[in-house]
Amino acid sequence: MIETLENRFPARDYLVELGAPEFTSICPITGAPDFGELTIRYVPDEKLFELKSLRDYLTSFRERKILQEEVPNEVLEQLVADGAPRFVEVEGEFAARGGMTTRVVASSGTLPQSWISD
Amino acid sequence: MIETLENRFPARDYLVELGAPEFTSICPITGAPDFGELTIRYVPDEKLFELKSLRDYLTSFRERKILQEEVPNEVLEQLVADGAPRFVEVEGEFAARGGMTTRVVASSGTLPQSWISD
Amino acid sequence: MIETLENRFPARDYLVELGAPEFTSICPITGAPDFGELTIRYVPDEKLFELKSLRDYLTSFRERKILQEEVPNEVLEQLVADGAPRFVEVEGEFAARGGMTTRVVASSGTLPQSWISD
Amino acid sequence: MIETLENRFPARDYLVELGAPEFTSICPITGAPDFGELTIRYVPDEKLFELKSLRDYLTSFRERKILQEEVPNEVLEQLVADGAPRFVEVEGEFAARGGMTTRVVASSGTLPQSWISD
Amino acid sequence: MIETLENRFPARDYLVELGAPEFTSICPITGAPDFGELTIRYVPDEKLFELKSLRDYLTSFRERKILQEEVPNEVLEQLVADGAPRFVEVEGEFAARGGMTTRVVASSGTLPQSWISD
Amino acid sequence: MIETLENRFPARDYLVELGAPEFTSICPITGAPDFGELTIRYVPDEKLFELKSLRDYLTSFRERKILQEEVPNEVLEQLVADGAPRFVEVEGEFAARGGMTTRVVASSGTLPQSWISD
Amino acid sequence: MIETLENRFPARDYLVELGAPEFTSICPITGAPDFGELTIRYVPDEKLFELKSLRDYLTSFRERKILQEEVPNEVLEQLVADGAPRFVEVEGEFAARGGMTTRVVASSGTLPQSWISD
Amino acid sequence: MIETLENRFPARDYLVELGAPEFTSICPITGAPDFGELTIRYVPDEKLFELKSLRDYLTSFRERKILQEEVPNEVLEQLVADGAPRFVEVEGEFAARGGMTTRVVASSGTLPQSWISD
Amino acid sequence: MIETLENRFPARDYLVELGAPEFTSICPITGAPDFGELTIRYVPDEKLFELKSLRDYLTSFRERKILQEEVPNEVLEQLVADGAPRFVEVEGEFAARGGMTTRVVASSGTLPQSWISD
Amino acid sequence: MIETLENRFPARDYLVELGAPEFTSICPITGAPDFGELTIRYVPDEKLFELKSLRDYLTSFRERKILQEEVPNEVLEQLVADGAPRFVEVEGEFAARGGMTTRVVASSGTLPQSWISD
Repeated sequence: MIETLENRFPARDYLVELGAPEFTSICPITGAPDFGELTIRYVPDEKLFELKSLRDYLTSFRERKILQEEVPNEVLEQLVADGAPRFVEVEGEFAARGGMTTRVVASSGTLPQSWISD
Repeated sequence: MIETLENRFPARDYLVELGAPEFTSICPITGAPDFGELTIRYVPDEKLFELKSLRDYLTSFRERKILQEEVPNEVLEQLVADGAPRFVEVEGEFAARGGMTTRVVASSGTLPQSWISD
Repeated sequence: MIETLENRFPARDYLVELGAPEFTSICPITGAPDFGELTIRYVPDEKLFELKSLRDYLTSFRERKILQEEVPNEVLEQLVADGAPRFVEVEGEFAARGGMTTRVVASSGTLPQSWISD
Repeated sequence: MIETLENRFPARDYLVELGAPEFTSICPITGAPDFGELTIRYVPDEKLFELKSLRDYLTSFRERKILQEEVPNEVLEQLVADGAPRFVEVEGEFAARGGMTTRVVASSGTLPQSWISD
Repeated sequence: MIETLENRFPARDYLVELGAPEFTSICPITGAPDFGELTIRYVPDEKLFELKSLRDYLTSFRERKILQEEVPNEVLEQLVADGAPRFVEVEGEFAARGGMTTRVVASSGTLPQSWISD
Repeated sequence: MIETLENRFPARDYLVELGAPEFTSICPITGAPDFGELTIRYVPDEKLFELKSLRDYLTSFRERKILQEEVPNEVLEQLVADGAPRFVEVEGEFAARGGMTTRVVASSGTLPQSWISD
Repeated sequence: MIETLENRFPARDYLVELGAPEFTSICPITGAPDFGELTIRYVPDEKLFELKSLRDYLTSFRERKILQEEVPNEVLEQLVADGAPRFVEVEGEFAARGGMTTRVVASSGTLPQSWISD
Repeated sequence: MIETLENRFPARDYLVELGAPEFTSICPITGAPDFGELTIRYVPDEKLFELKSLRDYLTSFRERKILQEEVPNEVLEQLVADGAPRFVEVEGEFAARGGMTTRVVASSGTLPQSWISD
Repeated sequence: MIETLENRFPARDYLVELGAPEFTSICPITGAPDFGELTIRYVPDEKLFELKSLRDYLTSFRERKILQEEVPNEVLEQLVADGAPRFVEVEGEFAARGGMTTRVVASSGTLPQSWISD
Repeated sequence: MIETLENRFPARDYLVELGAPEFTSICPITGAPDFGELTIRYVPDEKLFELKSLRDYLTSFRERKILQEEVPNEVLEQLVADGAPRFVEVEGEFAARGGMTTRVVASSGTLPQSWISD
């Protein structure tokens, strides 16, 4: 479970983007390690994700056998369960295997459209 | 035929982007090899494309005589036939021939508009 | 309080973007310094923010204990209070802590949609 | 006149982008050579532009006296006349003259809005 | 006054972008020189701006005392007065002063939305 | 032990550089994972390092507790023991910990000075 | 055999560097295609390598089973045999296989040391 | 004082490079904060610098009034006093003040010349 | 013939580097235009090359049929004949033809070794 | 005259590099402004150059008519006269005029050869 902090600005829709460039898991087909970068973008409701706890959660994939396409979907569901953000998107970019790279983007909720940059 | 895996998250529209930076075919006009990068972006329905099988399919173009403009269209039709994705786009960027580069983008289906980044 | 100058062109909606690449504050959890870059984008009404005064305001965070997620929200509220811009957005990009980076974007007001580039 | 090939996929709206980084013409005011890059983006109808013929057409500007602002407009009209694409855009980026660069973008027809990337 | 040339293609909405990377004026507060880059984007009506005349106009700011926020607004008004473009936008990016950079974007008229790239 | 292949060109001093951008080990002080990139440069004598065997050797550090400064030194000694190259250098670049990055370069043997680029 | 042209400037030591970014061969261990970039640097004596003939020679590796470490050594020996340059160096940079990249540099003869840049 | 760890490989001359991209001190002339990046390169003798202790030492400059030209010289003398490395170099790159950037490089001891890359 | 200006600092060896990114000539084999960038580096003796005259000389290659390998050699000889520099080097980088790029570097005289950067 | 500060570390040869990216003067031939970047590298003896005074000196070129080739030579002589550094090098990179860029490097004194990076 990912721990949370209180969001002191719940009246405002705002974006938090967390970059985790050091993600690794195990390919269930070959048994070889996969390496990638995860990016989490969310609009908090009552809770902010606590970074050290989030990092430990992501480190728990180090020995997991899981398809690259499934990683962002699993992380997304955990974030929704623990932090109930108004919107959350998880993007994973994985290093090439067999000469092919994989990027996966999954999201939950809808994003307010009132910012210049996202 | 490109083999597929079961999509464990069919209830969610999400994006998978596969990069194949090492594509080569034969120019039907000059007989000289063409080199390019293919990028496949799709929203899976029931099936995920299996990467090793997809790579072998792309490698099968190594001895094919085919126009650069036709490559993404052919790959698109094969992906639709084998994986029936909700949306799929194939982009090919080809190295310069006679001082001119070619990029081709073909797609099938429509894309959900609810993501920050694509 | 951030000082202001008179906007000589109040009849026109136009964008001012201020980059402050040298921001530092103190993490309230670890007590270690945080480093980041702030970017402020605003559409002035009657007032322009005076740069030296704005810089001194941002330097005042040097000894503040404050969460990275809270910095752009606090700066936003100060800018609204002192300059009453038609639109204002504050973005903070913070250097990695524990292998994770944080970016936060908060805004107030709505943005005219009539520019080519933002 | 630019020669064409048959489009084998006329039922599908798809994008072809051709890059010609080696364009040169003559400035009608100073008589000095201009250098630039042309990019052509089009949605073919029944015809694809044949690359060698297109390159020879662009090389024909080598001794032409023509304003930079006029080059993309002229190329656009030739492409419409010879290939009748559903949509076509011509962009020219010219190297600095007197410390100023020029970019020109002209188009004809309307573009389908159903692609992720353009 | 900025001189103009006749637009040979007035029936078509098209974009001209002029880059002036070598702009300098004087800060009215400190008396020190400011340095920046101006970018002008416009859709011509009957007239094209003549580049040498435009460059001389921009060079006339070399001894002017003027706020960075005011430069694009003044240039915009001169361009409207002399060339009556259908749309025009002026962007100024200024080098850091006191550790802060400034970018300003001002425009007049509305832009046709029928191009792939701007 | 790292397996080797026969060097078919032992009469010539030549350089082989192997890049392993996906290296991970465990910090013995904090117990947290370290991430880095290893680069191996060697002049083969009778043997070439077999890539799959070398990759498996590097993957064996995944559960090792070892200081970043020690990784290149250990890898160097293994390469000397198994392949007896005329020259070998191991460079490790590790991602930031506590806001600081580490790079380590260790070598064995001397390098012929007759190449243009290294 | 690679054809040659007469060097019109044999009295001067000068460098010619040829870049071939589109090289492909077959891995003798896995049977999968390898992709890479070759760079040839030479000081001509009486002969210049004819580019079309050289390109055809490099294309002949398309169906060859050969280790990446051996490609630059073989190309080097062919260049020496056919063109007898005063100095020649062949560098090959190959795309990642199993997460590891390979670069190989082999040379013959010695290089004059009288240039600013190589 | 900077704490040290035992160097397990004292028989080998090898390079350790530590990057500290988040350095800040106070300008003694203006009282405004300076920002910069420090890079430390050393060849250890019996001791390695312990990273957390080194970071705390660098953080101690946060309230120090010191010229940019003096920072690398002071850090150099502390490293020599505490770690007695065979060679050590300290480089500081500071952000622009008044439109001018400063870089300072100071070293102690001599560097072995037996590496491909430094 | 390239005109020259008087060198006001003949007592000092110093470097002048001139970049001409807009060079074009005609391939004598195919008749198609070649495009490239020339860079001239020289240590003046009594004369500086006058830039407008040098540019006109380089523009005279626009209709010349000449091998890419020969261009820098010819330019070098003209510079030596007209300016008698203490050292001069001419580098030409040409755009790809048939998928291969060409770079040529020719020089005359010897270079003083007392500069940090060249 | 450029003011100086006392060098607190005269017993050590160390490098100071000052970057002045905002330099402008007047071309004596055309009367048009020139723009460039100056970089000063020096090994101080008893004196450090005071940055504000140095900046004011460089700003004094704003109305000077002077050839680009002469600027670094003049600045060099002023630095030697006012600061008597053990070594000093001045590099000027000027924006393109007539499609050609100019870089000039002049130095005085000799440089100690004991640093890793310059």
